[in-house]
Amino acid sequence: MVSITVFKGTKDGSIKQSKTEKAELSGDQVLLKVTASGLCGTDLHYRHADMVLGHEGVGVVEEVGPQAKYMKKGDRVGWGYEHDCCGHCQQCLTGMETFCPERAMYGFADLDQGSFAHHAVWREAFLFKIPDDLSDEAAAPLQCGGATVFNALHLFNTKPTETVGIMGVGGLGHLAIQFAAKMGCRVIVLSGSDKKKDEAMRLGAHEFVATKGAKELKVSAPLDRLLVTTSVQPQWDLLMPIMAPGATIFPLSVAEGNFEIPYMPLLLSGLRIQGSLVASRYVQQRMLDFAALHKIAPIVEKFPMTEEGITDAMEKLDKGDMRYRAVLVPQ
Amino acid sequence: MVSITVFKGTKDGSIKQSKTEKAELSGDQVLLKVTASGLCGTDLHYRHADMVLGHEGVGVVEEVGPQAKYMKKGDRVGWGYEHDCCGHCQQCLTGMETFCPERAMYGFADLDQGSFAHHAVWREAFLFKIPDDLSDEAAAPLQCGGATVFNALHLFNTKPTETVGIMGVGGLGHLAIQFAAKMGCRVIVLSGSDKKKDEAMRLGAHEFVATKGAKELKVSAPLDRLLVTTSVQPQWDLLMPIMAPGATIFPLSVAEGNFEIPYMPLLLSGLRIQGSLVASRYVQQRMLDFAALHKIAPIVEKFPMTEEGITDAMEKLDKGDMRYRAVLVPQ
Repeated sequence: MVSITVFKGTKDGSIKQSKTEKAELSGDQVLLKVTASGLCGTDLHYRHADMVLGHEGVGVVEEVGPQAKYMKKGDRVGWGYEHDCCGHCQQCLTGMETFCPERAMYGFADLDQGSFAHHAVWREAFLFKIPDDLSDEAAAPLQCGGATVFNALHLFNTKPTETVGIMGVGGLGHLAIQFAAKMGCRVIVLSGSDKKKDEAMRLGAHEFVATKGAKELKVSAPLDRLLVTTSVQPQWDLLMPIMAPGATIFPLSVAEGNFEIPYMPLLLSGLRIQGSLVASRYVQQRMLDFAALHKIAPIVEKFPMTEEGITDAMEKLDKGDMRYRAVLVPQ
Repeated sequence: MVSITVFKGTKDGSIKQSKTEKAELSGDQVLLKVTASGLCGTDLHYRHADMVLGHEGVGVVEEVGPQAKYMKKGDRVGWGYEHDCCGHCQQCLTGMETFCPERAMYGFADLDQGSFAHHAVWREAFLFKIPDDLSDEAAAPLQCGGATVFNALHLFNTKPTETVGIMGVGGLGHLAIQFAAKMGCRVIVLSGSDKKKDEAMRLGAHEFVATKGAKELKVSAPLDRLLVTTSVQPQWDLLMPIMAPGATIFPLSVAEGNFEIPYMPLLLSGLRIQGSLVASRYVQQRMLDFAALHKIAPIVEKFPMTEEGITDAMEKLDKGDMRYRAVLVPQ
């Protein structure tokens, strides 16, 4: 029996430290000591739930279960949104296990574990080795934020010759800029104001367009891809004229209600709306390796992993003031 | 100078026979004698416009211009929605000329020509040879209706092992059933009532689901593709549970306003909404050859190509009573 310090959501939204008891490791389970955790927008959605929060984890292997094969004590590993899958359905067999009907996902399964914790127990099969060139603090936000934007670009075959629009410069957007730029794409950032222009250009953007109050957007090339990382949905009348024929739009942030887009332009320009969800394991590992090779890293603000530290980080994120991803560090 | 009998829309929606004068043939222009024309839902949208109607044409070559190379007098040919393109943009150079910024499309260009006419003059480059095994009357509705559904299936790489849902059994739907079935797909038809069940099964459907009043839809396999051919948009709460992860939805009918779909299921199931518009030329020719090989043909109701005949056909189509595509035959 292992006793684990964890941080959970509560009915009133306050963060509470508590303990989870885990039985002896079985199967390919691995016990990790958490060294860093990212804070994702989704965590805010679950702060009122009775569950351990956090799904952008990085840690060091402390102990491995009887059937673990690839990990050993001392390995640096990360994990993200998915913890388990059935292993035998069409989706699992084709590297699309994020859509396995029995997927175990953050918020839906394993609610007694999370990355807001001092330790965690996960199946080895859902852990990713962190390349040496990535620090723990850099690797943590990649496990979900990085995976989400990389997956949209990679899984749907973005070509280096394409023009990629990134809407929003935040936790997802500032990583998307770096990935798309290093993939060789022309990167055009769309943001409300000019406030984040310098940062976006430093991160690899080729152009920056402030959209607020604009009557018309001017870009050097029409967008073949548009990653929408803002929670506010785009003003399509502004965007349609700069979309390339056959362009793909990725709505990436979590939102309620319906996705809406003008019907006829969708047909007349042959546009594609592509739902995309975090990353399957092979994509996640490619993402980490790509980030290490190209020195892609999140810009982070560090907070202590305490009730107060987590609360502060959540409030800053909620206000839209985070630059650009919080990393919680166990004390 | 050639004087051509044509049928045009008018302000009050009545159909008027009149004459168009065409200068001598130039470039690769070809003069056709029209032998059959399909009637498409889009024609109803333009019946109030001062233009020659019809874009599902079949005819016989009567005369070729000085630069025509492939067509000769007596050839049976068809044409559809697109009449010209620039020939040098990215879209034209990659077989996507339906998205050429200078595309000449029905309703937007060449308003003095149409398939509701005794003759027509078009560029040879936008004419398609009709395979011997296809009659004029069968070939006409394929030029737009057939092209639209075949393109959605073909261009976006439907695999024979997939399950294809066809929503609506009408001009488009009854052709989509045949194409998808002959491609080897499991074909599941969704229709309001059971009224068209026998017909759908005869056309090649493997299953038929009546949706009206249903609380839940039962299918033998989740849908990898859904072709929406109805003008009424689908009830997504009914459909979402039967969509396969990563499924593609094709909204194919013309509609006003916004396309709407529940946001989170789009992400959680990795769905794709794919805008698709008629067919580029290489796809159109493949479609005709595929139809001839597999004896795919529309079920048609014939009307005389007169003011009265066109009006009758339009009214029947508008009421939803057409079984399943009208063909107008010049008198």
